[in-house]
Amino acid sequence: MKFAKRVAETQNAGLNDLYTAPDPQQISFAGGYPDLAMFPQAALQVAMDHAMANPAAFQYADSWGYRPLRDQLATMMQADGIKTSGEHILITQGAQQGIDLTARLMIDSGDGLVVEAPTYLGAMAAFNQYEPTYYEVPMEDDGMDLVALKKILMTHSVKMIYTVPDFQNPTGAVMSLEKRRALVRLANQFDVLILEDGPYRFLRYEGTSLPPVKSFDTQGRVVFLGSMSKILSPSLRLGWLIADPEIMAGIEALKGAADVESSALIQRGVTEYLAHVDFPAHLTQLQDTYRDKRDVMLEALHRFLPADYTVTEPNGGFFLWLQGPAGLDMTQLQRDVLLPAHVSVVPGRNLAPSHTTQNGARLTYAAPAISDIEPGVRRLAAALSHAAARAQVK
Amino acid sequence: MKFAKRVAETQNAGLNDLYTAPDPQQISFAGGYPDLAMFPQAALQVAMDHAMANPAAFQYADSWGYRPLRDQLATMMQADGIKTSGEHILITQGAQQGIDLTARLMIDSGDGLVVEAPTYLGAMAAFNQYEPTYYEVPMEDDGMDLVALKKILMTHSVKMIYTVPDFQNPTGAVMSLEKRRALVRLANQFDVLILEDGPYRFLRYEGTSLPPVKSFDTQGRVVFLGSMSKILSPSLRLGWLIADPEIMAGIEALKGAADVESSALIQRGVTEYLAHVDFPAHLTQLQDTYRDKRDVMLEALHRFLPADYTVTEPNGGFFLWLQGPAGLDMTQLQRDVLLPAHVSVVPGRNLAPSHTTQNGARLTYAAPAISDIEPGVRRLAAALSHAAARAQVK
Repeated sequence: MKFAKRVAETQNAGLNDLYTAPDPQQISFAGGYPDLAMFPQAALQVAMDHAMANPAAFQYADSWGYRPLRDQLATMMQADGIKTSGEHILITQGAQQGIDLTARLMIDSGDGLVVEAPTYLGAMAAFNQYEPTYYEVPMEDDGMDLVALKKILMTHSVKMIYTVPDFQNPTGAVMSLEKRRALVRLANQFDVLILEDGPYRFLRYEGTSLPPVKSFDTQGRVVFLGSMSKILSPSLRLGWLIADPEIMAGIEALKGAADVESSALIQRGVTEYLAHVDFPAHLTQLQDTYRDKRDVMLEALHRFLPADYTVTEPNGGFFLWLQGPAGLDMTQLQRDVLLPAHVSVVPGRNLAPSHTTQNGARLTYAAPAISDIEPGVRRLAAALSHAAARAQVK
Repeated sequence: MKFAKRVAETQNAGLNDLYTAPDPQQISFAGGYPDLAMFPQAALQVAMDHAMANPAAFQYADSWGYRPLRDQLATMMQADGIKTSGEHILITQGAQQGIDLTARLMIDSGDGLVVEAPTYLGAMAAFNQYEPTYYEVPMEDDGMDLVALKKILMTHSVKMIYTVPDFQNPTGAVMSLEKRRALVRLANQFDVLILEDGPYRFLRYEGTSLPPVKSFDTQGRVVFLGSMSKILSPSLRLGWLIADPEIMAGIEALKGAADVESSALIQRGVTEYLAHVDFPAHLTQLQDTYRDKRDVMLEALHRFLPADYTVTEPNGGFFLWLQGPAGLDMTQLQRDVLLPAHVSVVPGRNLAPSHTTQNGARLTYAAPAISDIEPGVRRLAAALSHAAARAQVK
């Protein structure tokens, strides 16, 4: 039997780079896991219990999602700058399904798709299934390089631009206010859909939040994706998608075809949770915890890293980007040096369609215990120094 | 912005036929909902509570699914005749996602896909996204017409055959033992994948269960789909997919790209539930309840239906098929006569790619209260008689 063409591309996306073989001694800076200690376990348990008291929580509901939850999310997103309402929000299986459904809506085989370089591995895994023609826009400290973007839009047919404007995965960069405005202008000019992926938006550790790209949308061409995975619990598999009616009608049909609907049980539980807790206070706790971890991580990296390595300094989110000397192959380094030293990262090779980011790596400070961060960085730095020394000897 | 080609096809699948506008007076024989009173609410609540006591239940897990649950399902399916183990089972968002992922694995635009006529609407909604070339095989009382199937396989290139061998959606038919064996032989001969969708398998009301088609698989070319939606609760969104290693490797990559993984929280809850209850006894309760409902439904249909209508008499599952006179348009009848009379069915038009099943309809006895079934059938029969009388006058 011959599989569909899309399969090989998807299998080669490198999703397994996010996970490494079990090693109890390993300190992992790889997977984008939230800190296990930060789940509001008791409050979620109470909320789920309330939800389960109603037999309707166990029945089919609808593919849009539970309306009271969609209204709560609308209120939250309005406060964040997006003019929306519950009827323009659809519940997804995490933001990942939002990426999949939006690509499914837009991309026929060969269609142009712009991604940041480097970008989120899981997004490319979803995109690959629709066999796009990729165009890469380099990341800068203040978000994607719009000069490069404009050049692409002027010379190629593009259907969609994928961006993580807040605490980008994997660089941690935030797109500037001016670039957010200009990005929408370019999308209007060249008739392109913008897919704005915002799972880290509510995890800012200092400074002032910038409005979502969606808030500048004048023509209904920005799709915003939110997620509870990093700010509440990933096993709820609860994301949301905000779009204008024409786009939403298509997305809703695709959602029904993909998995009928998301769990009414989970949705009712989260509705109860949001109704009865101080969610902003919960977010503040997360911000305080992750800020501390980031600080420990950056201090250790600055102290111990070899001189020819640099790191980004994110103001929020889960990730920073480690950049090594040109020509370095971080995938090889991970296999030969880091894993044997019981430390892991996400090698950069698969984080851009062209694989030109192979001398970089994504590191997270969110998942490891704070007491493991400095020892982990020491291992990492020692392994990198040792590898460099060995390479010079050759 | 122009959507991908697959979108229009998916939007036109007619999924909305399964639902009708809210009407508190309506007795619905349309949606395939389980009986709300049959959810083991208290036991599920206890099980979920146990699961939530462990913070790992709120963390990411993996795209295969929770191994203890996969092992439990393997034991259940082994007892049902499929030689398998936990490592060959992947957890999906209901069986619907299993349909989507298997089609995604196999179907490039234009590839041949065989479906039963009539078939499950939601399956076609999923298939449409991959733009197959459909071939229809008529349903007979003992399952699909294998003479017609063989003719198709000899004259066309086909990648996949979709079948619901047990209590078929929408006819209620069961594929005979001989046809199950012959179907696998044909698939082997013509190098085709069989997608066996089995959500109703454990809902047999009399007679002896036949082994799954997968149990006759000698070349690893049958994918079996199971689901908790009809036998436990649909809002758990918990299905499972059994496949051999090569197929499974592709499916697993596609699952990760689609939505990362299914909820570890739900999976741990169901694991607790299955470990602590007498699940066969729960199934017996369901069988007793639905058998009674089916009996009431069939008795009423036989008493009240106009003479030129026939119905199938299923030994299990949720559905029977109402067949009207040739030339009848059940979609029009639903709109003009049934809905005004506060009764609804699923019109047959969208239940086959060729729309040739438009003089039939799918009826369920599972969801309505047992006391509503006879009154609902009386309304239905009266409306059909009235419409026939009016048509003759014209």
